[in-house]
Amino acid sequence: MAGEFKLIDKLFAGHDAAKGVMLGVGDDCALIALPGAQYLALTTDTMVEGRHFFAGTKPYYLGWRALAVNLSDLAAMGARPRYFLLSITHPDGNKRFLKSFAQGMFALAKEEKVALIGGNMAKGPLSITITAIGTCKPGRAMERSGAQVGDELYVTGTLGGPGLYVKAGMGELKLSPSLMAELYAKAFLLPCRARFAKRLAKICRCAIDISDGLVGDLRHICTQSQVGAQVVLDTLPLPPEFLLPEVTARLSLDERLHLALYGGCDYELLFSLAPDKVSTMLSLAQRYQVPVTKIGLITHRRQGLQLYFQGQRQTLKPGFEHF
Amino acid sequence: MAGEFKLIDKLFAGHDAAKGVMLGVGDDCALIALPGAQYLALTTDTMVEGRHFFAGTKPYYLGWRALAVNLSDLAAMGARPRYFLLSITHPDGNKRFLKSFAQGMFALAKEEKVALIGGNMAKGPLSITITAIGTCKPGRAMERSGAQVGDELYVTGTLGGPGLYVKAGMGELKLSPSLMAELYAKAFLLPCRARFAKRLAKICRCAIDISDGLVGDLRHICTQSQVGAQVVLDTLPLPPEFLLPEVTARLSLDERLHLALYGGCDYELLFSLAPDKVSTMLSLAQRYQVPVTKIGLITHRRQGLQLYFQGQRQTLKPGFEHF
Repeated sequence: MAGEFKLIDKLFAGHDAAKGVMLGVGDDCALIALPGAQYLALTTDTMVEGRHFFAGTKPYYLGWRALAVNLSDLAAMGARPRYFLLSITHPDGNKRFLKSFAQGMFALAKEEKVALIGGNMAKGPLSITITAIGTCKPGRAMERSGAQVGDELYVTGTLGGPGLYVKAGMGELKLSPSLMAELYAKAFLLPCRARFAKRLAKICRCAIDISDGLVGDLRHICTQSQVGAQVVLDTLPLPPEFLLPEVTARLSLDERLHLALYGGCDYELLFSLAPDKVSTMLSLAQRYQVPVTKIGLITHRRQGLQLYFQGQRQTLKPGFEHF
Repeated sequence: MAGEFKLIDKLFAGHDAAKGVMLGVGDDCALIALPGAQYLALTTDTMVEGRHFFAGTKPYYLGWRALAVNLSDLAAMGARPRYFLLSITHPDGNKRFLKSFAQGMFALAKEEKVALIGGNMAKGPLSITITAIGTCKPGRAMERSGAQVGDELYVTGTLGGPGLYVKAGMGELKLSPSLMAELYAKAFLLPCRARFAKRLAKICRCAIDISDGLVGDLRHICTQSQVGAQVVLDTLPLPPEFLLPEVTARLSLDERLHLALYGGCDYELLFSLAPDKVSTMLSLAQRYQVPVTKIGLITHRRQGLQLYFQGQRQTLKPGFEHF
């Protein structure tokens, strides 16, 4: 679930009331309670050629990323990824394409121990839909509505790399082939934060994965938690590539920060945490080798979403939306 | 899951082993056992414009059918439909289209009491993927591998109507507008057999839904149950439209039977049953107002799949495959 759905909320919302539905449309995953001790977390995500990736993208990369973006939604709930179903539409069912696609997908599936339990294949324009299912303990899900005033705001990994890749891929910027290859690989071979997130869920009540860009997804948290937030741009974790001379020569710091705030497709975790839980979280991050960075605070609702840079309040732009 | 997946079995099979997976890739649904009393049945199905439906198809019809084909897979397991996730790709997110699509989808969802718990929307060529989740009691699923020699073979509803609609829609045949409208509505506003199927599962161990055509899907049962089957073509339930003069004038009985055998997209249940369970099944069918017809028998594997018409053995053609 990303922001796209909101636009037609009126059409598709409100049909999620049923026995066992603990959380319906509107978070990273739905939550289902079945008789027994565990909740199910479910999510679905689609990638369309020309919309979510450029034509000609390596099928291995597509396979990895199609699963990764779904696992990212499960991670954002603190759920343990368990199973997935694949639906793929391809113009001619080309076997070389499918073989390489499967290799990429199963490389990640094996690493994260998730099982492909169903699928569907059809001829048509290239598009991939995965539905992923995880489990989590009741009361253990990190929901968008769980942020509290006074919480510290953290992100995993770095922000803006995929945004730079897309910008250059669209021809807005010319980068060296070697740098493009690196950004390309990183934008598709996304790391999975699920193991860390599952432990994090013991001490954290609010997380989201950054698919629409930091500002767009932080807005979801603010709206659903009825809070405000302050982000200190000086602290944003930019990717190491942003320091290369060929990047700094072409993009001002403002432009680089813009990519980190609005670029989207980072698929890193954004989470908020009570200050007294921070040291435990940092130990977890170290144990699972997940880089984490404090980027701000949760504030009162009336303060809204505020960005600061070198002590100065900055203007907000509308967040990135796929649809 | 339809036959399409088989073609690339080597690429995508064998990755479904995980804790809780009772039945993986290769049946109508996957089955997951979680701590507690119930199994989960999961299935996914995609409809692509120009492949599974003609461009310009009424969005209300598409909404109904996209959900119906998934509920049909759940029915074929004897699972009770509970939840679904929707992923829709549309060139421009046209609101009128989406409104009508949602009306059709929720009309069926309401009737069958299933909840939309997640979704995804993207711009791109028109395509709809639904993942549906049901529950069933352990040991109660009707699997493709459950047929026994001596079982009687039954189908619900009629066979061949959607095949005739597609044939005429492709311009191979000219029918009156009123008949076309009727076939069109019936091909999309499919009835749901899930309530009947849930009860049927108490006395029946083998079912499949007919998406690839009777012969194609009966082959799945024969292969997975390691049995043969005899079908008596004289007994096939043809739709009432097949008796209209404008149809009989244009299609020989052979051609009409061909549609019932190979036309596909019927989304009716094909199931096999021990003779001593038949009277109970017939009472259930009456109670749920589902028409059922005996069309043959399950035989020994060495006899293979045999078709008889007026006492004569008929030649088999390869089944219909989408891919």
